[in-house]
Amino acid sequence: MVSAMAQNIYDDPGFLSGYSRLDRSVHGLAGAAEWPAIRALLPDLRNRRIVDLGCGFGWFCRWAREQGAAHVLGLDVSEQMLRRARAESTDGAITYIKADLESLDLPQAAFDLAYSSLALHYVRDLAPLLTEVHRALVPGGRLVFSIEHPIYMAPTHPAWTQDAEGRKTWPLNQYLVEGERVTDWLAKGVVKFHRTIGTTLNLLIRLGFAIRHVEEWVPTDAQIQARPELAEERERPMFLLVAAQR
Amino acid sequence: MVSAMAQNIYDDPGFLSGYSRLDRSVHGLAGAAEWPAIRALLPDLRNRRIVDLGCGFGWFCRWAREQGAAHVLGLDVSEQMLRRARAESTDGAITYIKADLESLDLPQAAFDLAYSSLALHYVRDLAPLLTEVHRALVPGGRLVFSIEHPIYMAPTHPAWTQDAEGRKTWPLNQYLVEGERVTDWLAKGVVKFHRTIGTTLNLLIRLGFAIRHVEEWVPTDAQIQARPELAEERERPMFLLVAAQR
Repeated sequence: MVSAMAQNIYDDPGFLSGYSRLDRSVHGLAGAAEWPAIRALLPDLRNRRIVDLGCGFGWFCRWAREQGAAHVLGLDVSEQMLRRARAESTDGAITYIKADLESLDLPQAAFDLAYSSLALHYVRDLAPLLTEVHRALVPGGRLVFSIEHPIYMAPTHPAWTQDAEGRKTWPLNQYLVEGERVTDWLAKGVVKFHRTIGTTLNLLIRLGFAIRHVEEWVPTDAQIQARPELAEERERPMFLLVAAQR
Repeated sequence: MVSAMAQNIYDDPGFLSGYSRLDRSVHGLAGAAEWPAIRALLPDLRNRRIVDLGCGFGWFCRWAREQGAAHVLGLDVSEQMLRRARAESTDGAITYIKADLESLDLPQAAFDLAYSSLALHYVRDLAPLLTEVHRALVPGGRLVFSIEHPIYMAPTHPAWTQDAEGRKTWPLNQYLVEGERVTDWLAKGVVKFHRTIGTTLNLLIRLGFAIRHVEEWVPTDAQIQARPELAEERERPMFLLVAAQR
């Protein structure tokens, strides 16, 4: 579900402690509001070989095996997250390996699906990583990932304001200024990398991927009824979901 | 360069008068800051058959002929714009026809390129139009279009504000609330239709188009040096450019 790269903020004790208390860490996939939308983008996993880029506590790896996946390789840079992931399961068809997504080395044509949840926005340069992912997929293989939406990440002050009528408003700026964004979230100085939607999609296209689906996530009416605090997610997107095919 | 549909705001005398004074109306393609980026998405036009959806004064139709296009069909709903377009050229390989993009009927497999500049955001339902465009293109044919970027169109108050440091900030909200937006631009009550990037791209994909390029337009450094007022376009995107292939 999660990841960390060069900065490896996930091994910061304060960050990990806060992160471990999030719904998605306590309840797994069911605790992530965007999960039903991501799940809808996944192919049938039976007998598939899968790599999870930024596997965190291993929730997705275990779920994929429940769906019949043949093998799941879970990669993360956080030793502490991998330790917990390994402790959660004795399934021999899940392999957890410590790896930095910024210098990844994968076997060629070895996977049917590459999956990544909220990890790629920590990667400074996506081109080497996605080149490697393209090589690691079989022809026809899928890449399905979520990232923080660039609208969410871009602003100098990424926090709600109000318009003249008191409506929640997202103070967008710097959208076309790509690069590093430093925020305080669970810990001070978390480093992320802002890219426009166009930049990400054009990179995938250039590498030979066909774009299959692009989703700027919004909660369903049923989700908002169950959790009214989600209504604000209609004002600006928090997550971008992408499905592509080699 | 421009268009009008069901509402046909372009035949409103006040709107047309204001529109006629814009740089892009006086100077044509060279007066549109996003034109170099659109041009870069176009295939070689020599001997191509082209349809321009929302041709306005016919600037693109004439330019396409200069590039060697075999024939250009210019469609617009504005009688007054077509009148001026027809008056500007006696080229028999350009045909201007009055047509509403919301109820378009095109010959099948008759075009190599469908082009549209800043017209599709006036169309309430893109599905019938893009279905027709897909049928009208030959296999391998291209669709290249620009629209107002959904970030630009979404907010209840689409006008600059400032953040705490005085930086220009775009008060984004309603991004995930698709549908009608009514603004006062050159005339009162101009009706446009807001769709997320995901909605537009997924419609194209569902219809059988391959996405070739997605660009959230930003002026180049040279453009900003020549026209410093363009610098604010780095804060939030005004235009979305898309290239797709049948």
